[in-house]
Amino acid sequence: MFSAMVQRIREVLVFLFLAIVSKVTGVKPIFSRGGFSLPFEEEEAYCLSWRLGVETNNVRGWRTVPSKCLCHIENYMTGGQYERDLELIVEQILGYADGIFLSGDGLDAWILDVDDTCLSNLLYYRGKRYGCDPYDPPAFKAWAMKGVCTAVPAAQGLFVKLVDMGFKVFLITGRDEETLGKPTTENLHNLGFFGYERLIMRTKANKGQGAVIFKSGVRKQLEGEGYRIWGNVGDQWTDLQGESLGNRTFKIPNPMYFVP
Amino acid sequence: MFSAMVQRIREVLVFLFLAIVSKVTGVKPIFSRGGFSLPFEEEEAYCLSWRLGVETNNVRGWRTVPSKCLCHIENYMTGGQYERDLELIVEQILGYADGIFLSGDGLDAWILDVDDTCLSNLLYYRGKRYGCDPYDPPAFKAWAMKGVCTAVPAAQGLFVKLVDMGFKVFLITGRDEETLGKPTTENLHNLGFFGYERLIMRTKANKGQGAVIFKSGVRKQLEGEGYRIWGNVGDQWTDLQGESLGNRTFKIPNPMYFVP
Repeated sequence: MFSAMVQRIREVLVFLFLAIVSKVTGVKPIFSRGGFSLPFEEEEAYCLSWRLGVETNNVRGWRTVPSKCLCHIENYMTGGQYERDLELIVEQILGYADGIFLSGDGLDAWILDVDDTCLSNLLYYRGKRYGCDPYDPPAFKAWAMKGVCTAVPAAQGLFVKLVDMGFKVFLITGRDEETLGKPTTENLHNLGFFGYERLIMRTKANKGQGAVIFKSGVRKQLEGEGYRIWGNVGDQWTDLQGESLGNRTFKIPNPMYFVP
Repeated sequence: MFSAMVQRIREVLVFLFLAIVSKVTGVKPIFSRGGFSLPFEEEEAYCLSWRLGVETNNVRGWRTVPSKCLCHIENYMTGGQYERDLELIVEQILGYADGIFLSGDGLDAWILDVDDTCLSNLLYYRGKRYGCDPYDPPAFKAWAMKGVCTAVPAAQGLFVKLVDMGFKVFLITGRDEETLGKPTTENLHNLGFFGYERLIMRTKANKGQGAVIFKSGVRKQLEGEGYRIWGNVGDQWTDLQGESLGNRTFKIPNPMYFVP
């Protein structure tokens, strides 16, 4: 009994020591089955670097999330930090939008991407180990056909505010119009995405085009129609590269997949 | 004695419970003076979001690091994660550079920024509360005059490899040539930055120009001379925006200051 107590106290002291070290060094010990696991700690640090690399567009053309980052990405997407990151971005977007003087001629435009900018595919990707499994086009199509995406946190509020401010909001997506037009529209409406100017989807003419080419083409055409693109928001860097980018772009986090 | 033991055991159980919750939710309880401090936890989460916002160029034009993020930024810069992030980026850069077929005509160019891309100002910024204090031009100039910057971790190795591969490396910096030319050159040489093609600094002609204008002008001129810019590496988004950007850009982390 007494030796068990001593053992317990020793554990408390070790825990306290590590907690203090953690506070001082910023390196967080993680308590896992079997005690403190340094390899896990190193993996966590690696995955933080990898995710930063993805979000800053330093890591490109990746096909799957590194398997060792499954827990890290799951924690990020479902543990609260993803939502917090989105909230801060939406604050930045609205701060910028508030400072724009709209001309009133109905040509002040704003562009939003759809997948994982407005519509969340988190539930689908949960079944694909948060992107550790490779891209599965038939399965994703079957998911998108269902039209049951939830809204990306903070996105619906952002959308409504942009429309209320008087921006003409264009939703531009690489989704195929012929097969996914109806479920996508219904999904958006069911979530309260009403009052956008146009939902522009990929048609037969755009088949096989990379995202940068397709989306640049659409934006150029909008500018050709006289629209001034003030903002452009997407979860993929390919939404935010190319031509006619708009006055300012905003990158929404997405560590689960990369669209070339 | 017995009640103290019970109290201790209760503490252990609370600690274990929180550790398990932490593992499941990804929200890490931080042990601080007086016990678990939820406000600190929230601050940590906010600062993670803010730093991601800065690194992804969603947060722009900021003058100081939010005071509540002092500890977070200090931990990030000095606790190991900054170095890890740099290592991963350098891996990505070298992976990309390895795939480039150099023409052998001596016109394959690479651009590196200087401050906090090659030369580290971390020691200076430690005295400025890691960027929580506002920009102080005379103090920074006095620091730069000393020529005692250390090398950014991994940067010197990257530099040497690029030169060895046959790239003409151009160092482009907003530092003033007249006053900082000598100490900057000496500082670079002392740290092993030898064999670059040119160190291009701000001259009287560029005075008052923003970084995007100044650096775009330099890059355009290099392209005019026939150089092909394969890579462009900087810690500021203003290094990586504008014209003649190069075939690929890489963002080095810097949560301490923003150059407009």
